[in-house]
Amino acid sequence: MTKIETESRRARGARLLAAIDGDGGERVVESLSDIAPDFADYLLEFPFGDIYAREGLDVRAREIATIAALTAMGTAPAQLKVHIAAGLNVGLSRDEIVEIIMQMAVYAGFPAALNGLFGAKEVFAAR
Amino acid sequence: MTKIETESRRARGARLLAAIDGDGGERVVESLSDIAPDFADYLLEFPFGDIYAREGLDVRAREIATIAALTAMGTAPAQLKVHIAAGLNVGLSRDEIVEIIMQMAVYAGFPAALNGLFGAKEVFAAR
Amino acid sequence: MTKIETESRRARGARLLAAIDGDGGERVVESLSDIAPDFADYLLEFPFGDIYAREGLDVRAREIATIAALTAMGTAPAQLKVHIAAGLNVGLSRDEIVEIIMQMAVYAGFPAALNGLFGAKEVFAAR
Amino acid sequence: MTKIETESRRARGARLLAAIDGDGGERVVESLSDIAPDFADYLLEFPFGDIYAREGLDVRAREIATIAALTAMGTAPAQLKVHIAAGLNVGLSRDEIVEIIMQMAVYAGFPAALNGLFGAKEVFAAR
Amino acid sequence: MTKIETESRRARGARLLAAIDGDGGERVVESLSDIAPDFADYLLEFPFGDIYAREGLDVRAREIATIAALTAMGTAPAQLKVHIAAGLNVGLSRDEIVEIIMQMAVYAGFPAALNGLFGAKEVFAAR
Amino acid sequence: MTKIETESRRARGARLLAAIDGDGGERVVESLSDIAPDFADYLLEFPFGDIYAREGLDVRAREIATIAALTAMGTAPAQLKVHIAAGLNVGLSRDEIVEIIMQMAVYAGFPAALNGLFGAKEVFAAR
Repeated sequence: MTKIETESRRARGARLLAAIDGDGGERVVESLSDIAPDFADYLLEFPFGDIYAREGLDVRAREIATIAALTAMGTAPAQLKVHIAAGLNVGLSRDEIVEIIMQMAVYAGFPAALNGLFGAKEVFAAR
Repeated sequence: MTKIETESRRARGARLLAAIDGDGGERVVESLSDIAPDFADYLLEFPFGDIYAREGLDVRAREIATIAALTAMGTAPAQLKVHIAAGLNVGLSRDEIVEIIMQMAVYAGFPAALNGLFGAKEVFAAR
Repeated sequence: MTKIETESRRARGARLLAAIDGDGGERVVESLSDIAPDFADYLLEFPFGDIYAREGLDVRAREIATIAALTAMGTAPAQLKVHIAAGLNVGLSRDEIVEIIMQMAVYAGFPAALNGLFGAKEVFAAR
Repeated sequence: MTKIETESRRARGARLLAAIDGDGGERVVESLSDIAPDFADYLLEFPFGDIYAREGLDVRAREIATIAALTAMGTAPAQLKVHIAAGLNVGLSRDEIVEIIMQMAVYAGFPAALNGLFGAKEVFAAR
Repeated sequence: MTKIETESRRARGARLLAAIDGDGGERVVESLSDIAPDFADYLLEFPFGDIYAREGLDVRAREIATIAALTAMGTAPAQLKVHIAAGLNVGLSRDEIVEIIMQMAVYAGFPAALNGLFGAKEVFAAR
Repeated sequence: MTKIETESRRARGARLLAAIDGDGGERVVESLSDIAPDFADYLLEFPFGDIYAREGLDVRAREIATIAALTAMGTAPAQLKVHIAAGLNVGLSRDEIVEIIMQMAVYAGFPAALNGLFGAKEVFAAR
């Protein structure tokens, strides 16, 4: 649980966002440039520069957690798709992602899992 | 993603519930015996007999997903504590569980993560 | 879908609240008398004086809907217990209430249904 | 609350899904055939083969509960529309469905009820 | 916290809805005229005729509260856009609205704030 | 919307947390010292050091937004009470706080508003 401080938070966050979310992350940052440029900074700094940069949990496990949470919440389908793509980027297989989403039927109900699966279908088709 | 069919769903579910959730799971099943005994069957059969029994995602990954989802949802603190204990049972370290919960601040806000951490604190103290 | 206008909304609401929620509803109204007395009026007027007073859906069906919704939402366990008691008051059997709550496992997940069942257990035991 | 075991869960679920959800249910099952065929089985088996098949609550009451819950949750508008159509299939009138959804303004707020009503409008128009 | 009773609730609600939500509110009322005309009455009467008409909190503060709540809930993006426009109508600046939405990252997570910002972007562009 | 950088984020956050949340905030930070000390840092740095420190929205407006959001979400009653106290600390009157919470009945339903009012009652009584 040590925090890495060798790089600026923003630079570290930008590097990790690019590595994890790829184009999807970049598009989010760009889309904020007119409406709320400071929020793009916060997005790079806290989620990516602080949290994803932490030792103690590998990025594969982090994407499992994020895909599960966004599927269960059901309020952010666009961000779920970004993280399904991110899951593939960090080494999760399509089958593993499908398993994570199906499991959410237990905790958040069948509609949440169905909507997650339909999101996954779109992401997989676009690759 | 093959379904294992060598054992009855209920027996397989009971075996997995005991292995994963330990005493916490057993107490839930017992507490249903008067109000809704059939629901105890469903709980053994679908979540454990069907979902947790699936190949394609190891139980460690499954508990990461569940801890993340229950922290993010924030509506089932008792079940979150059962799954924090389950996470320890299947090999997650305390630090890994703390990392998963902290990460939920990004997706579900700081109060959700704080409440998850306070739940973890109780579970860790009770061991 | 005609609105009944023969009685004041407040009087009609108070009558229906007493008939449906019994003591539980009265206690809620009393508990608002110091902090937000106007809100007690709104509670009598809109939910009970307007909505529950409407023709077009009998009160039994209305309590099915409310028990289902509060179980699925999971954020108002005290109000769910008031409406489980209300369900019994308007003629739902214990078994029917248990069925409604169990069904919510499908739409909102097993933890939501479990928490609803534990609430029902408390209400049934107190009768 | 006895479970019916005279037919396989899957066959019973498929029969009930067809009777209740009609085309909408079939389309959901088909749309899962490439991404998660096992999840189509679970959907037939647990919600329909287990829950909707249960005695103790008629299917009309079950659809009241489901329409209420999905309206209140607000996270699954497509599934809500499937169940508004299902409600009509099992004998709920348009007015009764509108009453159920309007009542959700009390428990989940006006936006949830408005979004449910707009969903109902689409379903009614398509008939 | 006194309730104003000099005007009918419906008339007062219609006046306030027009003043606050402008065209957006009128369109909602009109869209209910076929499916649930009584619900249009309730919408005018309770939220606007009762709540927004109350002394004790100015309408600027009320729109701050509503924008925050709808951003955090994440289940009613259309209504959030109506209230972002309403916020501008009652004197909130674009920057203030952006600040409110960004703050929701703390309480409801980054995806909720991002979706709120994208909604604001659409509303601002349409002016 | 400029970010103030004259003080370290952590120091600024600690200063603002003390000014806004008072004892309640300090207790949260202390309660994290054994389970997740880094999370206490993040809590000081991002919500308080970054967000509450921003120009463009005064702290009174920020607390209106937070009280509204936490009431509407209904998943963090302890944090809602901290922010009701914070609202009093930054100059909101008891009546204004009650108005904000009552208004949430419109957007998140009567149970959410009732639970918020009961939380306010506890905070007011403890002063």
